[in-house]
Amino acid sequence: MPEIRTDPLTGHRVLISAERANRPMATAASSCDTSDAACPFCEGNEQETPGEVFAIRNPESTIDRPGWKVRVVPNKFPAVSTVHELLALDLTTLCLPGIGAHEVIIETPRHVAGWTELSVAEIDDVLSAYQARLEYWRRESNLKYAIVFKNLGYEAGASQFHAHSQLLGLPIVPEQVAHEHRAAEKFWKQSKRCPYCDQIAQEQAQRDRIVAESDEFVAFCPFASRLACQIRVLPRQHASRFGLLPAQPRRALAGFLQELFIRLERVLVIPAYNFWLQTLPFSSLDANHFHWHIEILPRQSNIAGFEWGTGYTINQIPPEYAAQRLRNI
Amino acid sequence: MPEIRTDPLTGHRVLISAERANRPMATAASSCDTSDAACPFCEGNEQETPGEVFAIRNPESTIDRPGWKVRVVPNKFPAVSTVHELLALDLTTLCLPGIGAHEVIIETPRHVAGWTELSVAEIDDVLSAYQARLEYWRRESNLKYAIVFKNLGYEAGASQFHAHSQLLGLPIVPEQVAHEHRAAEKFWKQSKRCPYCDQIAQEQAQRDRIVAESDEFVAFCPFASRLACQIRVLPRQHASRFGLLPAQPRRALAGFLQELFIRLERVLVIPAYNFWLQTLPFSSLDANHFHWHIEILPRQSNIAGFEWGTGYTINQIPPEYAAQRLRNI
Repeated sequence: MPEIRTDPLTGHRVLISAERANRPMATAASSCDTSDAACPFCEGNEQETPGEVFAIRNPESTIDRPGWKVRVVPNKFPAVSTVHELLALDLTTLCLPGIGAHEVIIETPRHVAGWTELSVAEIDDVLSAYQARLEYWRRESNLKYAIVFKNLGYEAGASQFHAHSQLLGLPIVPEQVAHEHRAAEKFWKQSKRCPYCDQIAQEQAQRDRIVAESDEFVAFCPFASRLACQIRVLPRQHASRFGLLPAQPRRALAGFLQELFIRLERVLVIPAYNFWLQTLPFSSLDANHFHWHIEILPRQSNIAGFEWGTGYTINQIPPEYAAQRLRNI
Repeated sequence: MPEIRTDPLTGHRVLISAERANRPMATAASSCDTSDAACPFCEGNEQETPGEVFAIRNPESTIDRPGWKVRVVPNKFPAVSTVHELLALDLTTLCLPGIGAHEVIIETPRHVAGWTELSVAEIDDVLSAYQARLEYWRRESNLKYAIVFKNLGYEAGASQFHAHSQLLGLPIVPEQVAHEHRAAEKFWKQSKRCPYCDQIAQEQAQRDRIVAESDEFVAFCPFASRLACQIRVLPRQHASRFGLLPAQPRRALAGFLQELFIRLERVLVIPAYNFWLQTLPFSSLDANHFHWHIEILPRQSNIAGFEWGTGYTINQIPPEYAAQRLRNI
């Protein structure tokens, strides 16, 4: 059973996959596989992954066979063990059972890497798979939280070239996420305004960090961008659960995101980024204070000793300058 | 003037070097230079760096000329501006002036990379340079905190091959560090024991995470190791300020650390690591609750979207297994 361990002094939590201990140490590192011959995510190689738990397929096709557009499978090397029934957790101990959900969303049957190589309809299918799996785990488990994330490129921690994202569900809400929610709730109580709605209004008034805008979405480089060219994407209309986004704006989001990645690819030196979706924790009811959002974090430089030791990051490109570069492409 | 910006909701702080905005974006990323022809840290190329602020030199040699063993220079691309006089800081604002100290400790005149290629005497000189610069900034500035760190290898964020470390001083104590101090102080108040002394005793009793021991020092893989093969080094004798470590145990530490790096190099797949030294913040008096320590964090896998989005890490090698591998080399 994996474990979620806590450092008693720093409070840092780590997911430790104990059952992988006997694998050779060498496999702890792997570089991106850019060949499609043995790619476990390519159409026709369905037997290389655990059996699918969700797919968008042609009606005449068969489960775990070709004929799919998006395919969701359990992670072959999960960081947490899948359970639906949550054990009673003693949150005061430094070692919790590593239970949760760890799934891979295979975004296309074709051996391509990024969202600039998918069609808008394909990205829309990926987003609808995110919704389906987030709503599944919200409904069918006692997990408290799930994050959807995507890593593209070796520098961003990807170990597979073929376009994929991951969902990781946890029995607790991570402290960093809980902290953000508490701050947002405090702001709401004081002002009766959603702080994210406020941020959209401020960025639109100030304009110098805006990257792109549409009727439904806004993208900007955050004021305290953690690394160069970070982009935050928010829906204009207040909404706390990504799973409830209707089909029409979801399709618009697919096109909006693809445009952002095209802009990024023209500016980035290293084609690597992390992407994640923050939606309402499962343990929360619909919230006035929280607004779902997507963060895109290009990985042009690696984090190092200073960042580990202090928790601060160093960003050599001010967001005002990054946004100008991205906007003017 | 660089800025220290804070995200109002997440609380994340970032050092933004505004004056670097006009540099071409391409230079945001750089790979390790493994050629010594144009290495700015090699003996004979002293004019390629800002003028030295400290050096261990042969008595007959001249400042900023050959004849040195360790040389400390201001960082050519500092993340903070050097000031000795601290302005009054309004800590409630989201944007502080990025003032502090950012120095490079060039560890050897020779074009080598790691501490396995230095002699124990050379490592001892490096440690004594750490002490000199930490004590200098403690005494001569109003800065609140400084961290010494070393990045080796591209995967660990190093942009220069030639062996070097860095000192970064700040006008505030990073929240992550302050959090650890508060937790340690609380433990001290409750038990009248230093929690780090306690950790040494526990690890020595339990034994399964111990990597190496000497009369003066203990090294173990922490219970909640953030990544595979993390090593924490502590002096057995309680001490909160690294700057006050006497010459004899400092020399012993040099040899102890070198042995750890030899062990790591035999186990690691990717020869990359971060190393940092946590000593008492300048703003604290000598403390019963805090014990200086060194963290070594091998970078066998990159952090990715999950880590950015949650603040948690994933470690595929339990520390008990990592310690066994490192111990048995």
